[in-house]
Amino acid sequence: MTNIKHISSLQNPEVRQLEHWNRKSRDRRKSGRFLLEGVRELGLALAGGYTVAHLYFCPDIIDLAELNAMFPNLDCPRTSLSQEVYRHLAFRGKTEGVLAVLHVKSHELDDLKFDSENPLILIAESPEKPGNVGALLRTADAAGVDAVIIADLLGDLYNPNTIRSSVGCLFTVPIATASTSATINWLKSKNIQLFAASLEGAKDYHDVDFGNACAIAVGTEATGLTTPWTEAADSAIVIPMRGAIDSLNVSVAAAVLIFEARRQRSL
Amino acid sequence: MTNIKHISSLQNPEVRQLEHWNRKSRDRRKSGRFLLEGVRELGLALAGGYTVAHLYFCPDIIDLAELNAMFPNLDCPRTSLSQEVYRHLAFRGKTEGVLAVLHVKSHELDDLKFDSENPLILIAESPEKPGNVGALLRTADAAGVDAVIIADLLGDLYNPNTIRSSVGCLFTVPIATASTSATINWLKSKNIQLFAASLEGAKDYHDVDFGNACAIAVGTEATGLTTPWTEAADSAIVIPMRGAIDSLNVSVAAAVLIFEARRQRSL
Repeated sequence: MTNIKHISSLQNPEVRQLEHWNRKSRDRRKSGRFLLEGVRELGLALAGGYTVAHLYFCPDIIDLAELNAMFPNLDCPRTSLSQEVYRHLAFRGKTEGVLAVLHVKSHELDDLKFDSENPLILIAESPEKPGNVGALLRTADAAGVDAVIIADLLGDLYNPNTIRSSVGCLFTVPIATASTSATINWLKSKNIQLFAASLEGAKDYHDVDFGNACAIAVGTEATGLTTPWTEAADSAIVIPMRGAIDSLNVSVAAAVLIFEARRQRSL
Repeated sequence: MTNIKHISSLQNPEVRQLEHWNRKSRDRRKSGRFLLEGVRELGLALAGGYTVAHLYFCPDIIDLAELNAMFPNLDCPRTSLSQEVYRHLAFRGKTEGVLAVLHVKSHELDDLKFDSENPLILIAESPEKPGNVGALLRTADAAGVDAVIIADLLGDLYNPNTIRSSVGCLFTVPIATASTSATINWLKSKNIQLFAASLEGAKDYHDVDFGNACAIAVGTEATGLTTPWTEAADSAIVIPMRGAIDSLNVSVAAAVLIFEARRQRSL
């Protein structure tokens, strides 16, 4: 292990920097970096075009040679961590001794490129929790949407809970973040139809045609979409409910709508 | 507040009993009781036919007169708790000063009674986490299934996380718990078709007919249903996926299947 720095002190400035980023996401965001744990996640991020700024590993858990064999093209500094330091920094309970600092990507609307002439887009307005963003991305990946747009995102995409709950879909799904008004303008400029999921008083989601280029927008579980969305929508749509509570999780509602769009498109 | 006992000590034996039940769910289960927090949840449980063994309230947060007005028919002892004791026992951050001990219900297969001749049933085999059970119940309520059967349930239905994540649907949806073999025998005895959600190599879920009395079974996210289910099924069904990760949350998968059944039945 020539030229590999080893850190075994919790007081080490690099360790304190990582710790600080875990605690103060705003400072992490300013740096344009995010933290990632796990071999599978790192592989997905690299496949998704992300670049690694620094790789940390715990030699008690994973061998550097093994790691280099898994990621042969990784061109970044490597630092080994004592088990104590690794456990201190690791966010998840079971990880494979790998912790990486990666560069965030650009998520501008204009970065979105579509293979299809009739893209199917999922829009989520201000999801309440990082876990909801992850769950939406998981649904979006499975349904094969062409892009996800998070409008007026709270926090940032690279929250550890978002990464974790997305089970890696954060790296596989094309994602843009933008304001509500910028997103609505962009949809209009691209002639993409907008369907706004509503809590009541709208068209049954089976009775609209998802066949053309379109975006399905969902709001928060508590209050749904804000007025600009319902005003800009080509159609408000609703999932008719039949229960006593009638409350769907936002990623469940998104899945029901998106898979209906997929069904129509496969006919 | 005549005849209302007040507890202000964390060392009080009743407090320690409740605390013990929170910590050791097995002992709570043996007692045939469960704990519930919140006015809305209590209302739903009462509407669902549950009975209250004991009502605790925190007069600093909610007035006894107010509580009695909300629940006029509640025939059970009431005890007031100091704010310290209440906060110590409360599971959730924001509750309305109400904590109740309720009697569990019977959840035998033979307790299930259907209004419809063609009931639509959701079956989940051994959901991995209490939160998943709650999410499934939430989906089941919104889709208006006639019953949910949890086969080989881990733990019990009245886990605080299940209650919380079900947003009250635990009390609104008819639920049975049973072993896999008992459930399969029961389905056969009732002539209820069984569709087994599979991870691959099965019929597209759009290509089966959910119109007759039927049950849709889902397994765990990691491994799907066990062999007895796939062997007993009238048809194995799959949600065709199009992503890189292709992993749906179990309650999302259940929602996509159940809402397709609903769509077919509404035609």
